[in-house]
Amino acid sequence: MSGTLPTAADIAAARVRLSGQAFVTPLLRSAELDRLTGGIVLVKAETLQRTGSFKFRGAFNRLAQFTPEQRRAGAVAWSSGNHAQGLAHAGEILGIPTTIVMPADAPAIKVAATRGYGAEVVLYDRARESREEIGAKIAAARGAVIVPPYDDPHVMAGQGTVGAEIADQAKALGLNVDAVIAPASGGGLIAGTGLAMKHAFPNVAVYSAEPAHYDDHRRSLAAGARQKNTSAAHALCDALLAPTPGDLTWAVNARQLAGGYGATDAEVKEAMKFAFRALKLVVEPSGAAALAAVLSGAHDAKGKVTAVVLSGANVDPATFTACIGP
Amino acid sequence: MSGTLPTAADIAAARVRLSGQAFVTPLLRSAELDRLTGGIVLVKAETLQRTGSFKFRGAFNRLAQFTPEQRRAGAVAWSSGNHAQGLAHAGEILGIPTTIVMPADAPAIKVAATRGYGAEVVLYDRARESREEIGAKIAAARGAVIVPPYDDPHVMAGQGTVGAEIADQAKALGLNVDAVIAPASGGGLIAGTGLAMKHAFPNVAVYSAEPAHYDDHRRSLAAGARQKNTSAAHALCDALLAPTPGDLTWAVNARQLAGGYGATDAEVKEAMKFAFRALKLVVEPSGAAALAAVLSGAHDAKGKVTAVVLSGANVDPATFTACIGP
Repeated sequence: MSGTLPTAADIAAARVRLSGQAFVTPLLRSAELDRLTGGIVLVKAETLQRTGSFKFRGAFNRLAQFTPEQRRAGAVAWSSGNHAQGLAHAGEILGIPTTIVMPADAPAIKVAATRGYGAEVVLYDRARESREEIGAKIAAARGAVIVPPYDDPHVMAGQGTVGAEIADQAKALGLNVDAVIAPASGGGLIAGTGLAMKHAFPNVAVYSAEPAHYDDHRRSLAAGARQKNTSAAHALCDALLAPTPGDLTWAVNARQLAGGYGATDAEVKEAMKFAFRALKLVVEPSGAAALAAVLSGAHDAKGKVTAVVLSGANVDPATFTACIGP
Repeated sequence: MSGTLPTAADIAAARVRLSGQAFVTPLLRSAELDRLTGGIVLVKAETLQRTGSFKFRGAFNRLAQFTPEQRRAGAVAWSSGNHAQGLAHAGEILGIPTTIVMPADAPAIKVAATRGYGAEVVLYDRARESREEIGAKIAAARGAVIVPPYDDPHVMAGQGTVGAEIADQAKALGLNVDAVIAPASGGGLIAGTGLAMKHAFPNVAVYSAEPAHYDDHRRSLAAGARQKNTSAAHALCDALLAPTPGDLTWAVNARQLAGGYGATDAEVKEAMKFAFRALKLVVEPSGAAALAAVLSGAHDAKGKVTAVVLSGANVDPATFTACIGP
């Protein structure tokens, strides 16, 4: 399947691989959220996934398909965030060595978490070195496989299991889903989730959720061609800063997305506060972008069944406190 | 059943009443928690229950058995906490008017939440008035039924559905549970949960978790007779301050508890921090007491399967951030 686009069958196969490995995360409801929106909002708490984000799914699905030789040689990735932890933990479970290239100034807590899952962490100087070059060199020297965070059909299929679970869980509630919204950076989560949801509910409308100044999916859709983010501004949503939609992900998303939403930092904070107060969930800023689209009214959920994905919860206490405070 | 003790059959009946009304909350696992304890720890996230605590279960189970006359006359309770919200929301769903007697100096956020669920809130002066007298007067004038927070077999049976769900969820994982720990104030949650768990796993050891200076269950067990709390100290666990085990609850707990744990404020805060960082859950101090018993090592979980109940998450941002901060 490498290089080609994933299908619903690939997602079903990923689900079998992930069975007993990834958690089936709960699909939650909130009377207050339904009242506020005038619709039915289903909240996929992927924050409760192993390693605190959906990234474990795609990483595990990729590693589980390594050949015996590849398993011995290991996997390499560059990431300072959730992909690093997801890959490291998947490797730990499968007994596959992983090496993660991380900036030397990455938060100590993230480096420690990645090492905690048993990965080798190689630090680089962000100003003078290229993580791609370092990663490629390590991969070449060891015969290791580079696992990209989104532009890989197996990774996309793994993330798609989020959508497959939502579909099953909604059907168990007797609900037909009208719309699904998930955060987008490179676009792997929304590509896979949209594929699975469209397979279950052909008429479902699929939306990306991004930070307001990093809304490349939204603008690419509007323009009919991939656009780049030009912002260099500080962004609260530190996991949603990919410069442009991915190659493979965009091939899927260009034809399946009904639209995209851009959330301001203030809207993201409101969503985190709501998740704390009403849902009792810890959500990282990037993980709250889809909920923000519903709460801000950007997405009109009135009279509809809307599923939103809370995609991650890896946030340090100081940032979290600043976001939910007055 | 009024006045008599609840049985496993009453809990099974409560489960049918609660079906589609209370959430089936997830039973979560954490690789880190298992590693830290050397055992398997199952975390019942009752924090995700409607109204943010298990109290909704018992209240709903009681109200659902009102006669048509009682439904019209309504329910009365006194509580400044989770029972108030649970009862108010259960009444809202069932169309039964509820009146909650709350202290005039109760946190505005709790009064607002209770009113938000449609309850009539009657405020009283804690220094000069008795909430029991006010509540009894209202109940007499209206023919309304007083719903106590724990000393009621229907309320206990409702809380017991927490244990029945844990048992089913553990069995679905192929696990036999060796020990279950839940927070105790009046003792309704641990009474019902213990009953249900003993029904499913006859050899399970049942433990109460309390604040260190409000450990009346622990001391009552040790003494072989009910003891009172004498502490008037400020307590972080504001929902675990009942003066002594309840009448009916103690009749159950005296014969089923294997022991009790008392957690210091520092241990409760560590548990809240762990829930934030590793489980990605918001937990209120009182809700974290059972997890604290496992993390502190007071309960030796090594080589065992231990289920802990996170019982509630109604905590204001200021208290929460003070607890998870450095």
